[in-house]
Amino acid sequence: MAETETAEAPTARATVGDSEFDRDTAVTLREPGVHDADLSAGWTIVNAVNGGYLLAVVGRALAQALPHPDPFTISAHYLTASEPGPAVVRTETVRTGRGLSTGQASLVQCDADGNEVERLRVLASYGDLDALPDDVRTSAAPPSMPPPEHCFGADDAPADQRSMPGSSAIADRLWLKLDPATLGWALGQPSGKGEMRAWFGLADGRPADPLSLLLAVDALPPTAFEMGLTGWVPTVELTVHVRAKPAPGPLRVAISTRNLAGGFLEEDAEVWDSADRLVAQSRQLARARL
Amino acid sequence: MAETETAEAPTARATVGDSEFDRDTAVTLREPGVHDADLSAGWTIVNAVNGGYLLAVVGRALAQALPHPDPFTISAHYLTASEPGPAVVRTETVRTGRGLSTGQASLVQCDADGNEVERLRVLASYGDLDALPDDVRTSAAPPSMPPPEHCFGADDAPADQRSMPGSSAIADRLWLKLDPATLGWALGQPSGKGEMRAWFGLADGRPADPLSLLLAVDALPPTAFEMGLTGWVPTVELTVHVRAKPAPGPLRVAISTRNLAGGFLEEDAEVWDSADRLVAQSRQLARARL
Repeated sequence: MAETETAEAPTARATVGDSEFDRDTAVTLREPGVHDADLSAGWTIVNAVNGGYLLAVVGRALAQALPHPDPFTISAHYLTASEPGPAVVRTETVRTGRGLSTGQASLVQCDADGNEVERLRVLASYGDLDALPDDVRTSAAPPSMPPPEHCFGADDAPADQRSMPGSSAIADRLWLKLDPATLGWALGQPSGKGEMRAWFGLADGRPADPLSLLLAVDALPPTAFEMGLTGWVPTVELTVHVRAKPAPGPLRVAISTRNLAGGFLEEDAEVWDSADRLVAQSRQLARARL
Repeated sequence: MAETETAEAPTARATVGDSEFDRDTAVTLREPGVHDADLSAGWTIVNAVNGGYLLAVVGRALAQALPHPDPFTISAHYLTASEPGPAVVRTETVRTGRGLSTGQASLVQCDADGNEVERLRVLASYGDLDALPDDVRTSAAPPSMPPPEHCFGADDAPADQRSMPGSSAIADRLWLKLDPATLGWALGQPSGKGEMRAWFGLADGRPADPLSLLLAVDALPPTAFEMGLTGWVPTVELTVHVRAKPAPGPLRVAISTRNLAGGFLEEDAEVWDSADRLVAQSRQLARARL
């Protein structure tokens, strides 16, 4: 059973701008279009740097480069595996419009021989979420799931039954409480359904914002685990739509897969805030190691 | 009531490689990375060049530029409105891998002053659909809809009730039969649900292939019409996953919107082939003119 202090959402100690997430996604403008970053080992899962974290680093560089602040739609194609350590984000302004501007970015690292290797390439259109009208006609409903105190996090499993082998530093940085209905895989009894649901926050209590939503959509265990697959599920492409600024409080993230075929699957994520607003939608194409 | 010859799927007269669609999406390599195209006025809706047709033009150039033939995942950000006439597609190979290669492309046209204007920018990862294993675990089911002879096309409406004002040349090139359950908008009685479903083919009988799927996902009337909006719904970004080569025969396309908010909506499309296989999935972010 979860202890009380981990079952409840972290109280806000860290703030937007002063948190683990902000420090680890920081980019420094070296010259126009060139941003230095330092990929933290703190956001790795089984030694792979999390794809949502990488997208947040690039998303921050684009927010600095473009005249609009918020990623409305951002697409990343993942090329090679990133490693903790120095990285460079190159940005290009493709078009500047009144309501939206479009940018492109590449995240690159140097290999052992000093050769530059591109890790991901990104296209994005940015706008200003605060400038949008309030009109909401959402037919979607928030996911039905138990309250956090009836959900389970990494700390709740006995040490000898933790299902994620290797280092999973990211688990220490997230407050993630999985719906037990989507947790069969961790007990060796996957449901066969391509669904995963969790309460999501940052462990240091930093509130959610559009940038941290880019992390939230890719932070849950893969739906493939509930479909009976045990191997890793590397992302080929991930597109996120940020639809509104999240209200304070924990987020609910629901991920689903409708089609696992030919060694590939899609993962659709919805992120809901505490005010029952759909704040982000994403879809990724990933490889399934069958 | 539909006449028999339009209610039935066109019999194959045109072939892949010799059809309206192939002629109008043709690209000619001028030099490495530079492809000449000629955007046809035949694929316009209310004077706007269809976004799926534009993606197919760019997708064909990328297929020629990359070592793999099929678009597995292709994302386009639409920058400015394209016009019928000459265009250039610039392609860049981002990464070449064993199973997948990634490319980038821009479609540009010259304005009246001879200045180059970028219309859309595209990132895509290509592979070989024929090389994938046959394994299919799809929890999704094909859309439930009546047979084509109980659905309705542009020809079926009395001329004075046709809902799409202006020129709609694309209607002559598509065989599109809309599910009457999603046709309330055309009679002034939108259902309020963000759903649109249709049988889809090319009017000259050209069989479907991965390239024509890029057109199919963006060829139906917008879901916004069934949500009571009447204005146009310009695409900001469109991502398509092609999951399998379509079997011969008509396609079924189902589009849905879960969230219309702040002047934007997403449109998710699924394309099913005659063998009940989910052959493509797409999502776009579009602006709603409220």
